[in-house]
Amino acid sequence: MSKTNPGHFFEDFQLGQELVHATPRTVTEGDGALYTALYGSRFAVSSSAEFARALGFRGAPLDDFLVFHVVFGKTVPDISLNAVANLGYARGRFGVPVYAGDTIRTTSRVIGLKETSSGKTGVVYVNSVGTNQLGEVVCDYVRWVMVHKRDPQTPAPDPVVPDLPERVGPEDLYVPEDLRLAGYDLELAGSPHLWEDYAPGERIDHVDGMTLEEAEHMMATRLWQNTAKVHFNQFEQAGGRFGRRLVYGGHVISLARALSFNGLGNAFRVAAINAGAHANPSFAGDTVHAWSEVLEAAPVPGRDDVGALRLRTVATKDRPCATFPHKDTDGRFLPEVVLDLDYWVLMPRHAALG
Amino acid sequence: MSKTNPGHFFEDFQLGQELVHATPRTVTEGDGALYTALYGSRFAVSSSAEFARALGFRGAPLDDFLVFHVVFGKTVPDISLNAVANLGYARGRFGVPVYAGDTIRTTSRVIGLKETSSGKTGVVYVNSVGTNQLGEVVCDYVRWVMVHKRDPQTPAPDPVVPDLPERVGPEDLYVPEDLRLAGYDLELAGSPHLWEDYAPGERIDHVDGMTLEEAEHMMATRLWQNTAKVHFNQFEQAGGRFGRRLVYGGHVISLARALSFNGLGNAFRVAAINAGAHANPSFAGDTVHAWSEVLEAAPVPGRDDVGALRLRTVATKDRPCATFPHKDTDGRFLPEVVLDLDYWVLMPRHAALG
Amino acid sequence: MSKTNPGHFFEDFQLGQELVHATPRTVTEGDGALYTALYGSRFAVSSSAEFARALGFRGAPLDDFLVFHVVFGKTVPDISLNAVANLGYARGRFGVPVYAGDTIRTTSRVIGLKETSSGKTGVVYVNSVGTNQLGEVVCDYVRWVMVHKRDPQTPAPDPVVPDLPERVGPEDLYVPEDLRLAGYDLELAGSPHLWEDYAPGERIDHVDGMTLEEAEHMMATRLWQNTAKVHFNQFEQAGGRFGRRLVYGGHVISLARALSFNGLGNAFRVAAINAGAHANPSFAGDTVHAWSEVLEAAPVPGRDDVGALRLRTVATKDRPCATFPHKDTDGRFLPEVVLDLDYWVLMPRHAALG
Repeated sequence: MSKTNPGHFFEDFQLGQELVHATPRTVTEGDGALYTALYGSRFAVSSSAEFARALGFRGAPLDDFLVFHVVFGKTVPDISLNAVANLGYARGRFGVPVYAGDTIRTTSRVIGLKETSSGKTGVVYVNSVGTNQLGEVVCDYVRWVMVHKRDPQTPAPDPVVPDLPERVGPEDLYVPEDLRLAGYDLELAGSPHLWEDYAPGERIDHVDGMTLEEAEHMMATRLWQNTAKVHFNQFEQAGGRFGRRLVYGGHVISLARALSFNGLGNAFRVAAINAGAHANPSFAGDTVHAWSEVLEAAPVPGRDDVGALRLRTVATKDRPCATFPHKDTDGRFLPEVVLDLDYWVLMPRHAALG
Repeated sequence: MSKTNPGHFFEDFQLGQELVHATPRTVTEGDGALYTALYGSRFAVSSSAEFARALGFRGAPLDDFLVFHVVFGKTVPDISLNAVANLGYARGRFGVPVYAGDTIRTTSRVIGLKETSSGKTGVVYVNSVGTNQLGEVVCDYVRWVMVHKRDPQTPAPDPVVPDLPERVGPEDLYVPEDLRLAGYDLELAGSPHLWEDYAPGERIDHVDGMTLEEAEHMMATRLWQNTAKVHFNQFEQAGGRFGRRLVYGGHVISLARALSFNGLGNAFRVAAINAGAHANPSFAGDTVHAWSEVLEAAPVPGRDDVGALRLRTVATKDRPCATFPHKDTDGRFLPEVVLDLDYWVLMPRHAALG
Repeated sequence: MSKTNPGHFFEDFQLGQELVHATPRTVTEGDGALYTALYGSRFAVSSSAEFARALGFRGAPLDDFLVFHVVFGKTVPDISLNAVANLGYARGRFGVPVYAGDTIRTTSRVIGLKETSSGKTGVVYVNSVGTNQLGEVVCDYVRWVMVHKRDPQTPAPDPVVPDLPERVGPEDLYVPEDLRLAGYDLELAGSPHLWEDYAPGERIDHVDGMTLEEAEHMMATRLWQNTAKVHFNQFEQAGGRFGRRLVYGGHVISLARALSFNGLGNAFRVAAINAGAHANPSFAGDTVHAWSEVLEAAPVPGRDDVGALRLRTVATKDRPCATFPHKDTDGRFLPEVVLDLDYWVLMPRHAALG
């Protein structure tokens, strides 16, 4: 019997099944430095332990998407090694901050199964939960992937599609109790614009562009111990659909988030992922730009120092975003659009700063 | 007089000579993160401090080959700056685990000298020993290199070729006394296969492939402070035999070891290097695959919770390993083979897990 | 109103103006590891905590130029986002050593302003000061940049050009009081040549060459949170003057400093930057070599264990430095010269080593 991991096929998943994913990971200051080197992130909370401590954090928390990528990476060998496509995300919530030295692990539960009409594949819905060494949730999300069947003849299971919210409610966003924004220094943060200064409908071109390199996306993806083959093996990809290695979609998410600093500099914390689409593939050599739209501005229950903004951030390849490129008249993503991410961020309110 | 290091020539080495190599190195969590980013290693002991502590380690030890590369890198300016070829390794033993914060240094002793028939070069055998700040051995190995003579007219020394064992005896493998494998979690480790499940003669295709990039192998090689010129200088290499920068052989070792997780996921510790050949050069753009053969399975004296497997891991370029490519009918390495490494790993036994 | 940073134009600067730059940065062992991976630095003080502690340091200080790049990077969004050219450096002094865990911030003061004859641009002189979390100065320097005017019609301010010294006086170099060089181990440092062994006029070819890669210079520049657009955006640069991304000048400084180990291995500390010119642009694919000339050798007041050397280090692209390439007969930099850096280093004296 082969000792290598063949991945799971559609038939291998059962409703309610619990998967304990391998390779717990102690994240370190080394991961933090690499994150800065790969994306150039400038949000002060993750950049400066002093800045973070002034707000009640224990130290500089690691970037929220770094946490997401680590939690996500563990699921790949069990969930998406035989995936045809990563179809969507929903109900993603970030939990307690993650600090250097914490150890992250992930478990997933199968919450939906639906064979596709072709009979050759099926869609698997999983709820993946990342926890730290104390068992506290650091990130919790649903994703669904299309997975090959081992055998097209296997009868289809009863279709179960979970009922997923369009977005996480603002009342469900996790805000650390110890967080006190009176200590937030706008000059050091690098932007004067606070929660009240953003209004639904507002669109922001993040201006800057960043070109992708093979060495960078591969180093990033390995750092998250994500084993999806399409990112690493040029010998095999040369004969594939694109002839190239595909960039991990999460790499583009982190890049877009880092670019969004220019216009959203006080969005110090990503609180939730409502939905996300990797609209088109990205490749080394592509230059990524991004723009954002404010979808909602919601107060955070019980707090007057911090508010939540629901954002759509769109990333493009080889196309600047001054005209906010998104979809065509038929509602299809433009070919230059590589990411459409719907998420909540936290931002200080004027009240906090006296 | 020039103040730059010309390296040593064959005439500069004397039997019994002791070389204290420069540049002691404090290894850190930053090195660990880079190691993961460069190779994507998933062995749980080095990935998770919690997992490691459950086995009696102080924390997550740094990867064994990271230690080897650091120990090895220090020897390059003194031993192999004028090397024509790295001919072989023998009797390599890993010692106490290395943790972030430890400081490594290396000394070498010349244990053999033999001029080659051309009279222009000679083979130098050195025993290099890496130690930590407490003087404990972390890695100890023999290698031999062919080195230029400064002057072909210099008379040859009496040839001395050390008597080197074909392999380290299983009784000589270092197993930390505090190691207790009862705490080993197979689910988190990511593989159900234990020591008893592997039999001599068994061959495993590690399936996955990884493409090499210039930025990656250069970053790795500099990280080990290895100064061998052929890896870094395209201007010079353009006029050389291959027209390209050569990838440090150790980079391929680490990549092959990381790929071997898929099939050998519980090989939590490399205990010894018996022999190794960099069969053909690797270059950026090559895609590395690997396969392994179990050469021996040996119990570890005095322990029923851990066993040793002697493995041959072969890495190839631009050739998948389903057919276990190795040598041609004349016993010569196939041109696609880039590494043949004979080494011991430790693996938990069923007894450990009750 | 746009929420993105348009950068400052010449009209936005006033004499005496104080700028508190954003994004304080806690530097870590992760940054140190990346620095080694990017440049291959081998100076023992920054490589080994044990070596450093033997000299009175608290641990291994981070590389001096790492500190410079972090301090400098913070100034870019406010000073040089609209810069036409980085014209020069002067009076740069390194202060207290920086250790992993320290948090660095930068403030700048405008000390000179002068419109250029075209009326379209002006030169801004700033004194930038980097401090740690205790408010201690870690790096303090002057640079001047040519910046676009927002409107060519704006009247010119009274020209003020600061009086800048040709070089920092040796009496002004910062030497940590606790530094005691009796513990300096020449064998571990990797060079036998001490302060007394270098004489003004001496020139050293550092021999080795290092080829630049896009992924490397971008990772480095992002690590310093330097946002200058020309380094990152190939889509935009494709239509620019060079058609390519430019390598951050500081990347070449660090590379040249690392190469200078071969010949200046005991220059354990950069104490001051007297002047510097990025003579020509560098691009990925260029191979960098370097040579140095000793400009002055000065004792350090009150100390017989350490001396100062004033060096000129010149870096080239695609040209080895055996013939010390520098300027043509008209005094212009040769087209292969990419860096001319005039700086002070500290080196142990024979007296220290008894």
